[in-house]
Amino acid sequence: MNQVIDTILNHRSIRSYLDKELPEEHLELLVRCAQKAPSSNNGQPVTIIAVTDKAKKAQLSELCGNQAFIAEAGVFFAFCIDFYRGKLACEKTNNEFYITDELSATVIGTFDAGLAMQNMIVAAESLGYGTVPIGGILNDSHAVIKLLEIPDYVFPICGLVVGFPKEQSAVKPRLPLKAVFNREKYDMNQRIYIDEYDEVMTKYMEERTNGESRRNWSETISRVYRVKGRRSIKQAMENQKFYNR
Amino acid sequence: MNQVIDTILNHRSIRSYLDKELPEEHLELLVRCAQKAPSSNNGQPVTIIAVTDKAKKAQLSELCGNQAFIAEAGVFFAFCIDFYRGKLACEKTNNEFYITDELSATVIGTFDAGLAMQNMIVAAESLGYGTVPIGGILNDSHAVIKLLEIPDYVFPICGLVVGFPKEQSAVKPRLPLKAVFNREKYDMNQRIYIDEYDEVMTKYMEERTNGESRRNWSETISRVYRVKGRRSIKQAMENQKFYNR
Repeated sequence: MNQVIDTILNHRSIRSYLDKELPEEHLELLVRCAQKAPSSNNGQPVTIIAVTDKAKKAQLSELCGNQAFIAEAGVFFAFCIDFYRGKLACEKTNNEFYITDELSATVIGTFDAGLAMQNMIVAAESLGYGTVPIGGILNDSHAVIKLLEIPDYVFPICGLVVGFPKEQSAVKPRLPLKAVFNREKYDMNQRIYIDEYDEVMTKYMEERTNGESRRNWSETISRVYRVKGRRSIKQAMENQKFYNR
Repeated sequence: MNQVIDTILNHRSIRSYLDKELPEEHLELLVRCAQKAPSSNNGQPVTIIAVTDKAKKAQLSELCGNQAFIAEAGVFFAFCIDFYRGKLACEKTNNEFYITDELSATVIGTFDAGLAMQNMIVAAESLGYGTVPIGGILNDSHAVIKLLEIPDYVFPICGLVVGFPKEQSAVKPRLPLKAVFNREKYDMNQRIYIDEYDEVMTKYMEERTNGESRRNWSETISRVYRVKGRRSIKQAMENQKFYNR
């Protein structure tokens, strides 16, 4: 098709890296790409903290659920929702600052951070790097915030590891396209699509584990979605002055 | 550099479109690209409703803040956070379904929707299309939900217009790179960077408006962030059974 589409369609998460740093100009280029993503009202509520220090990466690796590859990979980017700049802008112009009292700051900031991260992922993969988002940054927000000296009105929402892949991984099958691609209105036949996908995933797991696991998507995801209070994001955000009312 | 990086760095929002449909295979390809973005725990909590029907696009155009170009452009994609499939998976496996009671569902879904949308934006622009995200989909969630027949546990979080550009637009300057690219820890010198950026934006606005406006970033964004209750996202989400506790 073209390099962009090929890069996107060839995506897979990499969880095995060489212990090797990225050249400085690539770090900068990747953040430039992230920064070019659209942003609501040009608010640009995203700050990216690049961690390359080995000791700090090792600490993050522990904090994000003991994922050892985080310490090995070249760089860990902490993507933060950032309304501290908005607060300063309101102070500078003698305006009240209200947005972080409401859920809308979280929604806007989180969405814009997602846009920014995906630009970085696609750019990094086009340069031959492997990547994987680290949702585990939400496991212990307090410790991450302390480690990275993050102020009020800023919240680390997702990490991204970028590095030189040691091993390739397989492309995991996705839900049938018709499940996520609806036309003109929402398609209520989702249970049929889930059943189809569960069969695909059963076969995929069987092959990947030499018959040891046949766990399908419904079984896997329901173990995540049934858990109460898995992460106290609300409290962690309140500590940073995001009130989500 | 390469086509991926060039496409990303050359991004601008397009708000003027030819009244012309996209070929069917491109609609599908764009959604395939969006679907390839990473997703937390492979939950894939994103559904994309493509609206090409002219009457429906016109209604969305009104609902999203009377932005006429929405009706003109080839397609409006409503990106929805979707935990309805997660609910069905829990029912199928006899598990409790809890995640939408907590803020984490909103954070995860919104972030994953952002990742997905940016893949679509980059893919669309690589094919020569113009794009612009439509945050105005949050202005009247209830009406959008009704129009697109969206069920509980699903919430339209952002729209995306894709079409054939009628006019090009300028690339808007962004915050200084050092503001958003921090190293090892958060950089507290943000006020200095804002002052720099405000000067850049004053000049940019002066040029773009032939001297009519000199409004800088701080002035513009504080008018957005000072408003209380601009959008009742929390209530709208509760109506769809997202409780954000």
